[in-house]
Amino acid sequence: MIELSLIGIGTGSPGHLTREGVAAMELADLILIPAKGEDKSDLGELREMLCHKLLRRPPPLARFEMPQRDSRQGYRQGVEDWHDAIALRWEEVIREYRAQRPALLVWGDPSLYDSTLRIAERVGRRLPLNLRVVPGITAVQALCAAHRIPMNAVAEPVQITTGRQLRENGWPEGVRRVVVMLDGECSFQTLPENGTRIWWGAFLGMAEQMLIAGDLSEAGPRILAARAAARAAHGWIMDIYLLERPD
Amino acid sequence: MIELSLIGIGTGSPGHLTREGVAAMELADLILIPAKGEDKSDLGELREMLCHKLLRRPPPLARFEMPQRDSRQGYRQGVEDWHDAIALRWEEVIREYRAQRPALLVWGDPSLYDSTLRIAERVGRRLPLNLRVVPGITAVQALCAAHRIPMNAVAEPVQITTGRQLRENGWPEGVRRVVVMLDGECSFQTLPENGTRIWWGAFLGMAEQMLIAGDLSEAGPRILAARAAARAAHGWIMDIYLLERPD
Ligand SMILES: C[S@@+](CC[C@H](N)C(=O)[O-])C[C@H]1O[C@@H](n2cnc3c(N)ncnc32)[C@H](O)[C@@H]1O
Ligand SMILES: C[S@@+](CC[C@H](N)C(=O)[O-])C[C@H]1O[C@@H](n2cnc3c(N)ncnc32)[C@H](O)[C@@H]1O
Repeated sequence: MIELSLIGIGTGSPGHLTREGVAAMELADLILIPAKGEDKSDLGELREMLCHKLLRRPPPLARFEMPQRDSRQGYRQGVEDWHDAIALRWEEVIREYRAQRPALLVWGDPSLYDSTLRIAERVGRRLPLNLRVVPGITAVQALCAAHRIPMNAVAEPVQITTGRQLRENGWPEGVRRVVVMLDGECSFQTLPENGTRIWWGAFLGMAEQMLIAGDLSEAGPRILAARAAARAAHGWIMDIYLLERPD
Repeated sequence: MIELSLIGIGTGSPGHLTREGVAAMELADLILIPAKGEDKSDLGELREMLCHKLLRRPPPLARFEMPQRDSRQGYRQGVEDWHDAIALRWEEVIREYRAQRPALLVWGDPSLYDSTLRIAERVGRRLPLNLRVVPGITAVQALCAAHRIPMNAVAEPVQITTGRQLRENGWPEGVRRVVVMLDGECSFQTLPENGTRIWWGAFLGMAEQMLIAGDLSEAGPRILAARAAARAAHGWIMDIYLLERPD
């Protein structure tokens, strides 16, 4: 049996690593580091830095090129094939290193808008795997902590959604608070501004961390400007926000 | 200025503590430990154990009796008055110890169904406070990690809600996945069983951890039985679940 660990590492700060996460990294005999060519958002360097900073004797770090997603197919089929291709790459690397306890460092938490669990399941169809998941700090927690705000109003529900969902379906039914992730298009612009508040954060947990909060009508334009400038300066950006609609 | 830290400690496992969380505990010159009389669910002992296990030289631990909520008032007013009373207790303890860097260990993450941030805000109206929030692993992450499942379906939204909301308002609009917390009444019983799946967990991260998953029609009764037995054996229980409705 191969013991494969998916380790949530939080959203950029080495301080987000849990004690269990560090212990799982120390147990690993191989750490897979997926790379996306020149794309800085693969955060491969940050993962390597974490290994060298936190581990006394880091195991081999296998940096491997991620297959590309074929965008000519339909979205769902494209994603399925892409996950198959990534699973094959993992399998090759695990075999090549004869790893018994390989690990992957998963951004944030493995459960939230992340495909690692689905890829691991595919690998498990071809290799005898024992899967272990170590939870990590999500960008949602990092956002709320940085702004020092609760995620939910007292006794109320909260929804976590994507930029695309917000754009295409508008404000979700039945909730006054919404967390929006995976939004490359500042989809809050598509909302009516009647008293909605926003708490926005980019590069949370990292040296570049940015925070803006306020009424959507006045904070929205500030976010657009700050986001565009930061994106131009760094070449990429990762951001998330919480919205609250008035009663 | 008093530096007050609210430190997310995860949901029971000392392994959930983050490096930042341990460092913040080490910086504290007082750790407030709220107690609810004989009620084991205050988890005061677990918090004290964490301090002794993780810190080389723990600061004074101030265990103080929590005021009781007055249930004769309306719910909202009752909670408001209760938070005022708790804030007064914090203030007294901080003054008594002349603490400059007091800390509170918050179960899970301070942003999720927790009143600590709201109480800290009240303390801040009467003492010169600098508030720091350290994110922690939530019960949601602990549940998904233990079951090795994603929280959201690919590109879909997910809602986090309470047992009461589920009972009173039924399945939330517009989502196929729902996480239910704060549910003392197994409110999944009020749902139609047509193909809904459940992943349930109790005492997550703790030695007593329990996991049950399956189709609601067959897993539901198993959960009811296991929950009642565990509750009788331990005197209390803490549980959470994820539901998925078919397409
Ligand atoms: C593919 S998802 C991965 C989420 C991750 N698994 C988690 O638990 O937070 C990437 C999205 O997470 C959010 N995100 C992740 N890290 C972030 C950070 N450091 N600052 C701001 N947003 C972040 C952004 O919304 C981004 O589009
Ligand atoms: C007052 S809320 C606090 C939530 C906490 N702040 C968090 O981040 O998870 C308490 C609820 O969290 C869930 N919970 C917390 N710890 C848990 C555990 N160890 N196992 C199962 N459920 C837990 C249960 O649904 C419980 O009713």
